[in-house]
Amino acid sequence: MTDLKVGVPTVTISHAAQFDGRTVALCGWLYNLRKSGKILFPIFRDGTGLMQGVVVKSTVQEEVFQRVKDLTQESSLRATGKIRAEPRAPGGYEMDVADVEVLQRVPEEDPYPITPKEHGIEFLMDHRHLWLRSSRQHAILRVRHEVIRAVRDYLDGHGFTLVDTPILTPAACEGTTTLFEVPYFEDDKAYLAQSGQLYNEATIMAFGKTYCFGPTFRAERSKTRRHLTEFWMVEPEVAFATLDDIMELAEGFICSIVRRVLANRRQELATLERDVSQLEKVEPPFPRISYDVAVERLQKKGSEIRWGGDFGGGDETMIGEDFDRPVMVHRYPAQVKAFYMQPDPQRPELALGVDVLAPEGYGEIIGGGQRIHALDLLLRRIEEHKLPREAFEWYLDLRKYGAVPHSGFGMGIERMVAWLCGLEHVRETIAFPRMLYRLRP
Amino acid sequence: MTDLKVGVPTVTISHAAQFDGRTVALCGWLYNLRKSGKILFPIFRDGTGLMQGVVVKSTVQEEVFQRVKDLTQESSLRATGKIRAEPRAPGGYEMDVADVEVLQRVPEEDPYPITPKEHGIEFLMDHRHLWLRSSRQHAILRVRHEVIRAVRDYLDGHGFTLVDTPILTPAACEGTTTLFEVPYFEDDKAYLAQSGQLYNEATIMAFGKTYCFGPTFRAERSKTRRHLTEFWMVEPEVAFATLDDIMELAEGFICSIVRRVLANRRQELATLERDVSQLEKVEPPFPRISYDVAVERLQKKGSEIRWGGDFGGGDETMIGEDFDRPVMVHRYPAQVKAFYMQPDPQRPELALGVDVLAPEGYGEIIGGGQRIHALDLLLRRIEEHKLPREAFEWYLDLRKYGAVPHSGFGMGIERMVAWLCGLEHVRETIAFPRMLYRLRP
Repeated sequence: MTDLKVGVPTVTISHAAQFDGRTVALCGWLYNLRKSGKILFPIFRDGTGLMQGVVVKSTVQEEVFQRVKDLTQESSLRATGKIRAEPRAPGGYEMDVADVEVLQRVPEEDPYPITPKEHGIEFLMDHRHLWLRSSRQHAILRVRHEVIRAVRDYLDGHGFTLVDTPILTPAACEGTTTLFEVPYFEDDKAYLAQSGQLYNEATIMAFGKTYCFGPTFRAERSKTRRHLTEFWMVEPEVAFATLDDIMELAEGFICSIVRRVLANRRQELATLERDVSQLEKVEPPFPRISYDVAVERLQKKGSEIRWGGDFGGGDETMIGEDFDRPVMVHRYPAQVKAFYMQPDPQRPELALGVDVLAPEGYGEIIGGGQRIHALDLLLRRIEEHKLPREAFEWYLDLRKYGAVPHSGFGMGIERMVAWLCGLEHVRETIAFPRMLYRLRP
Repeated sequence: MTDLKVGVPTVTISHAAQFDGRTVALCGWLYNLRKSGKILFPIFRDGTGLMQGVVVKSTVQEEVFQRVKDLTQESSLRATGKIRAEPRAPGGYEMDVADVEVLQRVPEEDPYPITPKEHGIEFLMDHRHLWLRSSRQHAILRVRHEVIRAVRDYLDGHGFTLVDTPILTPAACEGTTTLFEVPYFEDDKAYLAQSGQLYNEATIMAFGKTYCFGPTFRAERSKTRRHLTEFWMVEPEVAFATLDDIMELAEGFICSIVRRVLANRRQELATLERDVSQLEKVEPPFPRISYDVAVERLQKKGSEIRWGGDFGGGDETMIGEDFDRPVMVHRYPAQVKAFYMQPDPQRPELALGVDVLAPEGYGEIIGGGQRIHALDLLLRRIEEHKLPREAFEWYLDLRKYGAVPHSGFGMGIERMVAWLCGLEHVRETIAFPRMLYRLRP
């Protein structure tokens, strides 16, 4: 293999426009090859975009023409040639190819396994390490990158300090049935965190506003299109904030993410054939309805839900379909919510919690609320829920030493990306999804 | 508790300067209280900073004076008063307190456990959820936040796509002795990832340049000041990049992080009494020395190292002390490096790897290098290292379908923060450290 940097400047496809009329080199892979007699149209891919090359038999050396003609899908190469504006080309530019050096040629007898024909989902998942190269998967993960960047920019720009919380935790936040257990050296055991919330409640007492953002784990046996066993969650928490404050935060947060993706990832959304007009409607104010009203609406629509029960996925879809933007459902029966939820002072049987449901049937993207700040009430709840008090001593300390009202929420990145991209299943929203029957590659 | 938002505007201490001369409210905690006869000087803390209040007996209601006088450390409160410029005050402003509403008073009989007196490290670690409020820990975690932000901004600004890699992985990257094992439902087991590198090698073939950034895990029994069992690592990987390219990337990357912390976290570095003149020297070019030269230098200094051995912590310190900025040691004996390292074409007994050692005795902050891209060589290495080929089939696919030269590295966030803050031990660089004997709180 020759030195990749010798000779003409090496450029990326995304920056090719700046080199219009100049001879440059592209390092990448053969995405596709169309042959038309004495002209070849290889499409190159370099991770930043696609560019069509034009190889005219009469203008290149015979062996160059033959080399390109024999190229196989996904072979790696270095192409040199002149960049030329071509309004009909996808990116607006083409390359008049002068030479192609093949770095590694995929052999005919063991061709690239993913072809333009249809493949079953299990086959694609088994080849996830290669499937990521296809334009659709590429687009989804670029949207994901943009979502994560927007999340961090919003919180960093609004006075939040990132304080990452531990993955290896000693105690369970909400029961142990869906926890992954990890033997921790000889005598101890840890659980993979399902949430950083309890720790966030400690860090806000030091920083005022914090967030954690990392992988979270649920050993859930459900095989639904909305569940992964390993997923990423961002959880902001705010000292001195009430349910209303946190609903306002969630609204501004979601709007900023949607706007960012619309501003910077139009091309990817087009690749995904996403109806962006649906996303353009996502502007404040979001509708806010109480759990009571949501249950009434559901019953009118024929749901079997009764007051006091939690919503199923179908219920969430039904609530969401009445609105053209996310809807915030607040004040749930305390009995369906976690032990740390602050009761509504007007109606103590209700918890000051909120779920944000995405439109178009995408269900819950945010769950949160106000936390109990009074020591005696929290102690009572720990007893009522039969939780081991000793595991929560440090958490109780936060109510002994400078307790303040506080609230927060968690947003699942994969569900957000699924909604923004308009995907059927969350498994495509993360590079290497982990599910009940999927731990590989 | 009354509504926290009634009346005067509520401001944070970091924004108090904008309210000079105005009456505002601060929500926070009592950090300290100095009493001087008929004047009280409470210091308030709100997560964004510290501000001294002044309570003059003759100008406030008797019960307000008494309430402040009786305040205990870390009690939560809402103070109202006029902001006044005061050049002698730490932040340049003080509050002439008119009223203080106590939200939760820490009782005398169960006082805040962390007092200005000296505490042992185990006591502080057991109270980590409270210790984070102290000014030193607060400063360290703000530097950490800045480091992470600088890392992401640098990579996002240099054409990298964030593609997070899985934590639950089926196979081991470098042996299984330091892996945490996780039972994965009935029939399977997973390991917590020690690195995302192998997956990064798949994602660069789709995106050109990628990085992953998340928690990584090592079940290491070592009780040293440089080891945690759970730590955060950023790992950039670049297609078509050689060892030299990745050394240049590491240099620019480190410099940008150091400059960012110097620009935005001067105050925190002052709190930590960090000698910033040491950090100001961190500019390119970094010295680059070969492993051969490093061994010679060490032997002259009295180290017992022989050619072919890996450096110990003491060796790293000795190499680093000759330089005023990070030093890059490259081309290690292949036998001490991982199976996937590309051999030096000039001397195949050497691997094209690089470690970056921080100055001032902080040791390795980056490790990386060029990876093998040829299928036959990688297959040979997998055999030589007695690794199970079937676990690496997907990794081998990357050499069958469009292999390209590629390189990358990993940077440990905790070691970087320890160096920048000038800390003795990495346990203070993360909110809730996990070590051999430390899984709580």
